Amino acid sequence: MNNDMLALLNKVKSGEVSPHQALLSLKMEPFADLGYAKADLHRSLRQGADEVIYGEGKTPEQITGIITAMRERSFENILVTRIQQETADYIHGKTDDFIYHPIARLGVAYSRSRDPLGSVVIASGGTSDIPVCEEAALTAETLGSRVTRLYDVGVAGLHRLLSNSGVLMDAKAVVAVAGMEGALASVIGGLCDCPVIAVPTSVGYGASFGGLSALLCMLNSCASGVSVVNIDNGFGGGYLAAMINRQASVTLG
Amino acid sequence: MNNDMLALLNKVKSGEVSPHQALLSLKMEPFADLGYAKADLHRSLRQGADEVIYGEGKTPEQITGIITAMRERSFENILVTRIQQETADYIHGKTDDFIYHPIARLGVAYSRSRDPLGSVVIASGGTSDIPVCEEAALTAETLGSRVTRLYDVGVAGLHRLLSNSGVLMDAKAVVAVAGMEGALASVIGGLCDCPVIAVPTSVGYGASFGGLSALLCMLNSCASGVSVVNIDNGFGGGYLAAMINRQASVTLG
Amino acid sequence: MNNDMLALLNKVKSGEVSPHQALLSLKMEPFADLGYAKADLHRSLRQGADEVIYGEGKTPEQITGIITAMRERSFENILVTRIQQETADYIHGKTDDFIYHPIARLGVAYSRSRDPLGSVVIASGGTSDIPVCEEAALTAETLGSRVTRLYDVGVAGLHRLLSNSGVLMDAKAVVAVAGMEGALASVIGGLCDCPVIAVPTSVGYGASFGGLSALLCMLNSCASGVSVVNIDNGFGGGYLAAMINRQASVTLG
Amino acid sequence: MNNDMLALLNKVKSGEVSPHQALLSLKMEPFADLGYAKADLHRSLRQGADEVIYGEGKTPEQITGIITAMRERSFENILVTRIQQETADYIHGKTDDFIYHPIARLGVAYSRSRDPLGSVVIASGGTSDIPVCEEAALTAETLGSRVTRLYDVGVAGLHRLLSNSGVLMDAKAVVAVAGMEGALASVIGGLCDCPVIAVPTSVGYGASFGGLSALLCMLNSCASGVSVVNIDNGFGGGYLAAMINRQASVTLG
Amino acid sequence: MNNDMLALLNKVKSGEVSPHQALLSLKMEPFADLGYAKADLHRSLRQGADEVIYGEGKTPEQITGIITAMRERSFENILVTRIQQETADYIHGKTDDFIYHPIARLGVAYSRSRDPLGSVVIASGGTSDIPVCEEAALTAETLGSRVTRLYDVGVAGLHRLLSNSGVLMDAKAVVAVAGMEGALASVIGGLCDCPVIAVPTSVGYGASFGGLSALLCMLNSCASGVSVVNIDNGFGGGYLAAMINRQASVTLG
Amino acid sequence: MNNDMLALLNKVKSGEVSPHQALLSLKMEPFADLGYAKADLHRSLRQGADEVIYGEGKTPEQITGIITAMRERSFENILVTRIQQETADYIHGKTDDFIYHPIARLGVAYSRSRDPLGSVVIASGGTSDIPVCEEAALTAETLGSRVTRLYDVGVAGLHRLLSNSGVLMDAKAVVAVAGMEGALASVIGGLCDCPVIAVPTSVGYGASFGGLSALLCMLNSCASGVSVVNIDNGFGGGYLAAMINRQASVTLG
Amino acid sequence: MNNDMLALLNKVKSGEVSPHQALLSLKMEPFADLGYAKADLHRSLRQGADEVIYGEGKTPEQITGIITAMRERSFENILVTRIQQETADYIHGKTDDFIYHPIARLGVAYSRSRDPLGSVVIASGGTSDIPVCEEAALTAETLGSRVTRLYDVGVAGLHRLLSNSGVLMDAKAVVAVAGMEGALASVIGGLCDCPVIAVPTSVGYGASFGGLSALLCMLNSCASGVSVVNIDNGFGGGYLAAMINRQASVTLG
Amino acid sequence: MNNDMLALLNKVKSGEVSPHQALLSLKMEPFADLGYAKADLHRSLRQGADEVIYGEGKTPEQITGIITAMRERSFENILVTRIQQETADYIHGKTDDFIYHPIARLGVAYSRSRDPLGSVVIASGGTSDIPVCEEAALTAETLGSRVTRLYDVGVAGLHRLLSNSGVLMDAKAVVAVAGMEGALASVIGGLCDCPVIAVPTSVGYGASFGGLSALLCMLNSCASGVSVVNIDNGFGGGYLAAMINRQASVTLG
Repeated sequence: MNNDMLALLNKVKSGEVSPHQALLSLKMEPFADLGYAKADLHRSLRQGADEVIYGEGKTPEQITGIITAMRERSFENILVTRIQQETADYIHGKTDDFIYHPIARLGVAYSRSRDPLGSVVIASGGTSDIPVCEEAALTAETLGSRVTRLYDVGVAGLHRLLSNSGVLMDAKAVVAVAGMEGALASVIGGLCDCPVIAVPTSVGYGASFGGLSALLCMLNSCASGVSVVNIDNGFGGGYLAAMINRQASVTLG
Repeated sequence: MNNDMLALLNKVKSGEVSPHQALLSLKMEPFADLGYAKADLHRSLRQGADEVIYGEGKTPEQITGIITAMRERSFENILVTRIQQETADYIHGKTDDFIYHPIARLGVAYSRSRDPLGSVVIASGGTSDIPVCEEAALTAETLGSRVTRLYDVGVAGLHRLLSNSGVLMDAKAVVAVAGMEGALASVIGGLCDCPVIAVPTSVGYGASFGGLSALLCMLNSCASGVSVVNIDNGFGGGYLAAMINRQASVTLG
Repeated sequence: MNNDMLALLNKVKSGEVSPHQALLSLKMEPFADLGYAKADLHRSLRQGADEVIYGEGKTPEQITGIITAMRERSFENILVTRIQQETADYIHGKTDDFIYHPIARLGVAYSRSRDPLGSVVIASGGTSDIPVCEEAALTAETLGSRVTRLYDVGVAGLHRLLSNSGVLMDAKAVVAVAGMEGALASVIGGLCDCPVIAVPTSVGYGASFGGLSALLCMLNSCASGVSVVNIDNGFGGGYLAAMINRQASVTLG
Repeated sequence: MNNDMLALLNKVKSGEVSPHQALLSLKMEPFADLGYAKADLHRSLRQGADEVIYGEGKTPEQITGIITAMRERSFENILVTRIQQETADYIHGKTDDFIYHPIARLGVAYSRSRDPLGSVVIASGGTSDIPVCEEAALTAETLGSRVTRLYDVGVAGLHRLLSNSGVLMDAKAVVAVAGMEGALASVIGGLCDCPVIAVPTSVGYGASFGGLSALLCMLNSCASGVSVVNIDNGFGGGYLAAMINRQASVTLG
Repeated sequence: MNNDMLALLNKVKSGEVSPHQALLSLKMEPFADLGYAKADLHRSLRQGADEVIYGEGKTPEQITGIITAMRERSFENILVTRIQQETADYIHGKTDDFIYHPIARLGVAYSRSRDPLGSVVIASGGTSDIPVCEEAALTAETLGSRVTRLYDVGVAGLHRLLSNSGVLMDAKAVVAVAGMEGALASVIGGLCDCPVIAVPTSVGYGASFGGLSALLCMLNSCASGVSVVNIDNGFGGGYLAAMINRQASVTLG
Repeated sequence: MNNDMLALLNKVKSGEVSPHQALLSLKMEPFADLGYAKADLHRSLRQGADEVIYGEGKTPEQITGIITAMRERSFENILVTRIQQETADYIHGKTDDFIYHPIARLGVAYSRSRDPLGSVVIASGGTSDIPVCEEAALTAETLGSRVTRLYDVGVAGLHRLLSNSGVLMDAKAVVAVAGMEGALASVIGGLCDCPVIAVPTSVGYGASFGGLSALLCMLNSCASGVSVVNIDNGFGGGYLAAMINRQASVTLG
Repeated sequence: MNNDMLALLNKVKSGEVSPHQALLSLKMEPFADLGYAKADLHRSLRQGADEVIYGEGKTPEQITGIITAMRERSFENILVTRIQQETADYIHGKTDDFIYHPIARLGVAYSRSRDPLGSVVIASGGTSDIPVCEEAALTAETLGSRVTRLYDVGVAGLHRLLSNSGVLMDAKAVVAVAGMEGALASVIGGLCDCPVIAVPTSVGYGASFGGLSALLCMLNSCASGVSVVNIDNGFGGGYLAAMINRQASVTLG
Repeated sequence: MNNDMLALLNKVKSGEVSPHQALLSLKMEPFADLGYAKADLHRSLRQGADEVIYGEGKTPEQITGIITAMRERSFENILVTRIQQETADYIHGKTDDFIYHPIARLGVAYSRSRDPLGSVVIASGGTSDIPVCEEAALTAETLGSRVTRLYDVGVAGLHRLLSNSGVLMDAKAVVAVAGMEGALASVIGGLCDCPVIAVPTSVGYGASFGGLSALLCMLNSCASGVSVVNIDNGFGGGYLAAMINRQASVTLG
């Protein structure tokens, strides 16, 4: 940022750029203002990952509008999360390149193939957690990570998890997805030596209070290296795992 | 109860007992009314265990009064829970036979030696849970159970628990005591085939919310055979474990 | 487990089994990995009860897949909980031996007749609690317990409960099911001398907060021998009652 | 109020009172403005009971100032609640007629003897609830009610309560004071045919959450005729019971 | 009760009744056991009011069964609360005398005309609270009270309430129904000298948290003589108001 | 008020008005009593703004009745909030001048054009918050304020907000609308020197707990000059902003 | 900001300022970096009010350091909130001009006399709320507002508030401070036509849950024009009231 | 693990190791059993970091015992968190090499100098958050990370944070520590392209509810790449940041 500003100010000094133009340039918004949304077009520069469209609460028209604005600026791998089949169908009708994954409730527009990097493991406590897991897994894959799925390895049957401890030991980041008592994150945290991102899910009933139980359990984990994202936030878990995995893997080649 | 009433009514018929006397007898309270307390003197008949005095919120004088009333009726093994050293000292000064356990904050008046029965395991997640564990262990021992202590076997280091799985497999009842994420109960519940009584503790900070986190985790356990008592209720866990252990063990001899 | 490992290691020593084969055998998973689920096939050895399929959040196809995998390994009395009529119909179409109980929302595949053991009492506070009660009762019956139902005996009309105190006195375990204020567990806990498993229900409105009120009431029970499972967890209550009842009854014969 | 206004307006018409005087009179505040407090001097007219000073959060000087202002206007039976011994000592030093009850943490200035009316029963779940009970009992007695105390009759030992059912049947109002599970109110509500005022107490630990458990239990009571006041609000329970008792009793004579 | 027992025992003495018959008689349940429900047939003796059927969670068949059982024992004024139009239609088809009030969601079978007694005021904070108000009003009317309705007199426009203060001053009991901030109960409590029963409603949104806000506000009322029932519990408010009104009014004649 | 009373009392003195008439006049309700509602007709005098009808929980007939009563008294700009399209259609059929805004779910009857005053800014964290924003914006516009909309300027992309800081600096009041973490209010509070009204929204999932997260965040704002209204209360935010804007702007002319 | 940048860029063009110097100037932090704190020295420009030091959690040395840094830059009227007497004494020893107000727990360094503007009313529900009121009142006075105190005017005795309605009608902003049920804000909101800032207090016990009850009540206020700040945040209430009062008053002169 | 087992089994085959010895070896616990604690001695192998002793709830004797057991096995850099000065003094008296940091309340025994790797930034919202920040910073430094401290850069004065954006852009991991509204994590998350670990603190009052407000805010962050640890868990934040930093940095050399 400083370098950019210095370069710009040097151009002002040399007269290449007028003060008014410089001001404009400095203020020129690094986003596309669509009225209902201000699509962030520089995030890949600033955050090392493409823009993601959180679909919930947006109309199909709004989502398609944002995709179009991004496509016009040559974006690829545009992830759209939390959309239903009907919205996906609408987008598909308007966008020539869009793939929808119904279990994970997400889609990717203008997907670009990449060689998967490193190793991210997505583990789930039960079968019912799979939609959140797939949101995490597909997000991490879209962002370029190699993903291994370990589903239904909850702590009430430890041997299922222990028989996969080798996979866990090799991971650069693990996403531990569990509802109800959420103990999976602590047990995995004790088994492996990489960051564990705990994703509580709203799977459960009664005193699970919509995922609160799993959330609190995970926040109180005795295992070091465990951090937590929002309930059912598979995207957030997958995104962060991919970010950690990329940091740890890119430099290996 | 029915048999007692029938016997009484037969005596009324035969004239042995007058109707008024019978009414009195039926209504004669099966407790010692001390004004501030109505000490339950028939509970051992009704519940198979002696009266327990919950000390918190009672004055030393009140506790001693209840002990005296019970002693006059030949009670033994009178358990007094949740008392501080000062209260214990006061009781000790008034009662010739009283042993206080400071870590567990409980005492036993007129303790009677019994051959321990069966097998109760008290397991703790961490070192800080030991006071609650000892409350459970001493309660179960006072009520006649053989007790094995497994402390600091929390799930973030599974090998500590797994290396003791033999002890767990042989138990008639396990008391799983844990604060913070409270995952211990689920893991133990998956390892053994007897009832597991989960005791959440207030050990922890921040989002443990005084034991709420462990409590919710335990209530949501995926493992079958796990039930929960109040936060820090070591007495309740030990009492129930002893009750289950006695049911399962007495009939073996 | 130790004996198994020792036997295996002796065979390795004798050359009967090669080290690699032994490693494989030790690691051979004691579950059927169906991708979406890892059905636990050794639980009856480890826990003394057959596998139970928690139906909520699983597709009819997944449930049928798990039943099939278990049936192939000669399992009987496979309990499937929390399923709707449509799911039951689907399973019925695929499985030749499946009975569905709509009030309890559970079904049993390949049920095997057993002589009922001991005595479990299922008591409810009100008529609206019956679905949870039936989940508990049918679970306990499937697991081999003799069950007595005492419905609508809430504490606001004590005589209804007191007139059944004989039944309660004879039980090996009582499941006390109640919503709203949940006081039933404490009153029953004071009347009988066996473990009482309290099941709070979400029956109620307003400040019952989906069963939270009954849950807290039960956790704070002054009666000893009372423990609590999750809100509406009839299965958990019935399972634990059957486990306690079996421990207390098997050894009587 | 209307009659007063009409009378005043008639005097305006007749010239007995000038419009300005009438305005002043209408606006003349029916309270003593002490700066830090506006002591309500007409409440006994408006509410049928004397002013009560809630002592918590007020300095001894402020409390004494209010008592003095009331005494100057010939008030009697001035109740001061929630004060410690030190505050009571201070008031005693400044006021010639003040009696302090340390267990109930309340005092009465210028107490006036009255013949007690009707019947209010104060029942407690346990010994630890006695301070709240005494606050209720002394409040009701100060307000002129005959009070019967039934302490330590919690639901885990029903016979203690049932043996006193006659007293409950004769009451005009019952105050049911209980902490922990708070089931006492429901059981009493089912036994008697007068209003039951439930007072949850903060007695308990862990999942009693400072009285929340008892509060919720009482709010969800299945028994009709039960209403609830704030946690530990013995004064509120006693005041309301006295009000109901007076309404039901005064007209009998 | 004592008199009944004494009479019975005297008959035992005289030989009129055999001990076994007496036992049977003592144990003969004072309720009709319908399997799914134990309809309380003595409540009107014990509580001075007829049985009320809480309809929520009961099937139309169950409700009709209970009404029939009560009718066979000559009950009148049988109140059925919390039922929908469809249930009411079903009952109407089976019962020759049943009136349904759709706004209050309650009905009365075999209603009996009575001269209304005393004065109960039902006040509401807003128009949206009317369904709960009507549940209270119709309950109190069915139980024999004269009822005045004061709707939409919330505290944000005090003159609406103050212009009706005369009605409030004359009441024997007031039911204050309000959602959102629930301040109505305190203001009314300060205006009148009879018991005020506060009924919080779930009317509101956001931080009203389903009525929790109004509930807490009412529990913390600074006005004396205010007590609270469950959220949306119009029945409970109306029942208690009628009970207080009857106690205060019956003796006037 | 005092002047009115004095004038009235002077007329009583002079005999122009009889005492009874004066009493009537003083008590004459400044609202239209429609039975189900007491429409406040003097609020514009008392509060400087016309009556607003909160539509939720009212039937279309009730709303139309209130509009009619107000229209008969020559009210204009009658705002009706929280109504669905069907209700709007009904009102439209009965009222000749009614405009409905579906996104904001509000309508205005008999709208009157005014020159907009001052400057109110409505800022939103995301696209999904727009319905609440529009409720605020249209309310403020109906009440006469000039409104600037700044949507989708959440804190995770600060440049979007910073590039609009000029607009914020010129505002007389800002309404900051945000769900999820609700940080927008603090950041805006640090950028501008006018009151910021924070409106938390229920946009979000999981640990947003229906807007609780945003609400707490906003209440804890470190920025001075920030206050908070209820979750999703766009009307309240817009109303207060317009009130502040009018106070600050009217006096400028 | 834009004008400043443009001016700076013009100077860069003209050579008056070198690009590097300009960059430095643009980045030159508008705060004093003391290591432990970054004292905001431009806030009075940006927000129209001087910096305020929130004392809680800061050592006396840190507070004095910040005052000194501000004094060196000629700040006046430096408000220090939430400090105890010991801290005040320490500051007094180091700073030659510091006045401490013990009830409000705040102090002012280098106070500057100003003519008070407009009218802010601080109203309290009870005597115990006075410390929070004084924090609000002294803050508003320090920021230049004329303040009227109306203490102990809670809604349970409406006449105390109504007799002061004239003062409320004339205010430019009202701060309504109340604990327990917090109804004061709604009642005041209905009486006056200026913004009402509600400050819930932690005064109360039991179900006041540390001020949560008053907070929720105030957030749910039916009166328009009411907004809420944090529990016990007298400073926030006084600051916002002064800001609104200044906007409304400055332009009148 | 597999390799170890295979090697062991090969030795069994060759007769080098007897089956019984192998069994023993396989079961030999990888921890030091001190009775009250089972110190995990293999964690550095399994997790890439040395053991950490959580001091809260442990006696000085227990902590010293664990340090001694670890030292005997040649551990270095033994971190002891959450201890007071008195405990530190005790340890210092028993251990020849122990450094205590009072602000962070942690100490290091047998610290070993390492070249710091990569870049971890610890940012705080306010001065009061510094103790938690220092716990994070010293933990990360002890684990070998280079740490930059950015304190008092809360979002209400954005320029303080923006002027340090360069430091944030260069970090491999950022720990964002904030109480009250906790918005810091979101703003930082939007500014940098590395993982952000949010640590909510209990700094605040009223509606911060002991850190709950900051916790919820952080969990709901709109910025991608943000995860959360427990309230006040500086250690957890620092540990995870160091783990991520090491993964990203080690491979660069």
